[in-house]
Amino acid sequence: MDPKARWLLPEGVDELLPPHAEEAERLRRRLLDLYGGWGYELVMPPFIEYLEALELGAGQELDVQTFKLTDQLSGRTLGVRPDITPQAARIDAHQLRREGVTRLCYIGSVLQARPEGPAGSRNAVQVGAELYGHDGLESDLEVLGLMLETVRSAGIEALCLDLGHVGILRGLLAGVALEPATEEALFAALQRKATDEIEALLREAGVGAELTGWLTALARLHGGVEVLDEAQRRLAGAGDGVERAIEALRRVASSLAVREPGLELHFDLGELRGYRYHTGLVFAAYTPGHSQEVARGGRYDGIGRAFGRPRPATGYSTDLKTLLALGRRHEAGGEEGGILAPWRDEPALIERVAALRRAGERVVWQLPGEAGRHGCDRRLVERDGTWAVEAN
Amino acid sequence: MDPKARWLLPEGVDELLPPHAEEAERLRRRLLDLYGGWGYELVMPPFIEYLEALELGAGQELDVQTFKLTDQLSGRTLGVRPDITPQAARIDAHQLRREGVTRLCYIGSVLQARPEGPAGSRNAVQVGAELYGHDGLESDLEVLGLMLETVRSAGIEALCLDLGHVGILRGLLAGVALEPATEEALFAALQRKATDEIEALLREAGVGAELTGWLTALARLHGGVEVLDEAQRRLAGAGDGVERAIEALRRVASSLAVREPGLELHFDLGELRGYRYHTGLVFAAYTPGHSQEVARGGRYDGIGRAFGRPRPATGYSTDLKTLLALGRRHEAGGEEGGILAPWRDEPALIERVAALRRAGERVVWQLPGEAGRHGCDRRLVERDGTWAVEAN
Repeated sequence: MDPKARWLLPEGVDELLPPHAEEAERLRRRLLDLYGGWGYELVMPPFIEYLEALELGAGQELDVQTFKLTDQLSGRTLGVRPDITPQAARIDAHQLRREGVTRLCYIGSVLQARPEGPAGSRNAVQVGAELYGHDGLESDLEVLGLMLETVRSAGIEALCLDLGHVGILRGLLAGVALEPATEEALFAALQRKATDEIEALLREAGVGAELTGWLTALARLHGGVEVLDEAQRRLAGAGDGVERAIEALRRVASSLAVREPGLELHFDLGELRGYRYHTGLVFAAYTPGHSQEVARGGRYDGIGRAFGRPRPATGYSTDLKTLLALGRRHEAGGEEGGILAPWRDEPALIERVAALRRAGERVVWQLPGEAGRHGCDRRLVERDGTWAVEAN
Repeated sequence: MDPKARWLLPEGVDELLPPHAEEAERLRRRLLDLYGGWGYELVMPPFIEYLEALELGAGQELDVQTFKLTDQLSGRTLGVRPDITPQAARIDAHQLRREGVTRLCYIGSVLQARPEGPAGSRNAVQVGAELYGHDGLESDLEVLGLMLETVRSAGIEALCLDLGHVGILRGLLAGVALEPATEEALFAALQRKATDEIEALLREAGVGAELTGWLTALARLHGGVEVLDEAQRRLAGAGDGVERAIEALRRVASSLAVREPGLELHFDLGELRGYRYHTGLVFAAYTPGHSQEVARGGRYDGIGRAFGRPRPATGYSTDLKTLLALGRRHEAGGEEGGILAPWRDEPALIERVAALRRAGERVVWQLPGEAGRHGCDRRLVERDGTWAVEAN
């Protein structure tokens, strides 16, 4: 085989080289320390599982994103995880089986069969946190706060928060039975805010004028907190579910005014990302100059049902490599500078090198015949029978 | 699908739950800090690559161990890495393309299609270091020293080091052209130290008495450093390559007497693990009570050839989960203890919680309606308008 073809990585697959890998490691530690400080426990689920375990509740969208393998041992189909969230839910529901609130966090590689978007990555390093066993808005707000801290820890300060609530659309559609294809087309049109298309679709499906009016209004209900007042007017009479969802958004807005003063909020009541997966509040953080969201999350109660134990759940996730690319560079770590040591089988030298390393110094052996400095600003030199550190 | 079947992990695949995941993270950090202190730069190659890139030089053994996937984008076959060493070699040879010595380290999940042994894991967390661009024994000794430090950092103190040199067998076979099947059978017999079988095989292949004597002797040449004297006698006249290999082992033994006084050495001249892959000194660390090696490595010059740039190379690798299982438990980290905080939208409380977390405290929000203590030994209480930390 042509050597050239060997070193090419597959499309959408990338790797971290020096010094970026070191930066990624520092950010990893900063984030896991942050999560530990908030009481989140680390889990490390495996990279592959039986396909069915990876797909629960997530439906077809995740299925086409999953790389599939045949297990030589069992003959069954395995999947490479495209998302760690269902794995964390499995751990909460089955492995830990605790009563009350459980907080979990994770970081790890995921793999997507197809990139999202033309220049998209297929091998994100997903990092996130999940809170199980509490169904109040407070847990949504806790998780949202941790998501914002995550993004800021990466040095991304300019943030805008998008908020939505899946309960609004669920409430509106509760009384109608749309064909799956119509529902799919409706969701797509709502995402594009294509009101003409929405009206045409609903007319064809025989949906009444009032509901059509509400669904069309949804596409227009996006903007600042004033959108919530407008929603209350426009969706008056649309039912308890819709009212409760709008009220939940109102409470979130007032809590965020205290907890995140100065944070720009954007409400989008037609936002449907992860509609099948999510069940309540949904949120996403954006930063200027980057069209995709930096992090996103929301409530997804009942995800443990597939494991025989439904639990309230809320969480978020992001990609370490996106955070690295968008964040400002942090101070360089300990790999700057260092001490060159000549290679000799000499106990005093060997002990000196070990002691310097224990003290946190970077000490690089200069092997016979090599001339590189390896970024060292000092060197070990023998002076009167002892080993001294001198400028290089 | 039966919920029960969903939470089962595939055979040989495991995951790390609290508190073991946290222990794994602490060991990960300890090891990467160790490597940084020795001047090794971190790389993070991807979990999948084109199949050919993963297999270079490693031959069939690695091929059957590799999970294969079809890339929807290119139509080509991808492999899930069963080993990170070839990836590091690719990075050295192609991505970095430096002159002189390059030191790389890595940690990451690997996946094997079949477990090694009946209770073997298929999803090790491989951690290792590689040194490129130096072909003296000093680089083997440096890497060997770092391997021993790695194992000790995990709290495994009782160690025995196995040493061999692939040059001995290569030297003996340099002048004969054995059929591949015969060679395969010879290697297998040597590994089992089955001298009768070796003699029968070589007789059948028409190999002369002298070489047969040497090859049979190889199966018996294992034990303490005195084995090297015996090897020199028994393999006298077997050629320069053999002599040089024995001399190399002698130099390693004398250097280790200075660098690792007290370390038990075991020489095995018939040791062939990774014969096609390795080219010089090979070594493995063992600990009492564990039949498999804890870590292993050796020289594998020329591995970059497949990428169009052969380089001298030596390195080692081990499995983080094996280290965790065999090492003594280290002190628990910061997740012991903590402070419970009541959930309120109150700026003074929110600021107090943030300040405590910045100071390194673990602070867990007590959400409305939940009674769990989450391992907290203290709590935040309002006293005369300020928030005080009190015993729980």
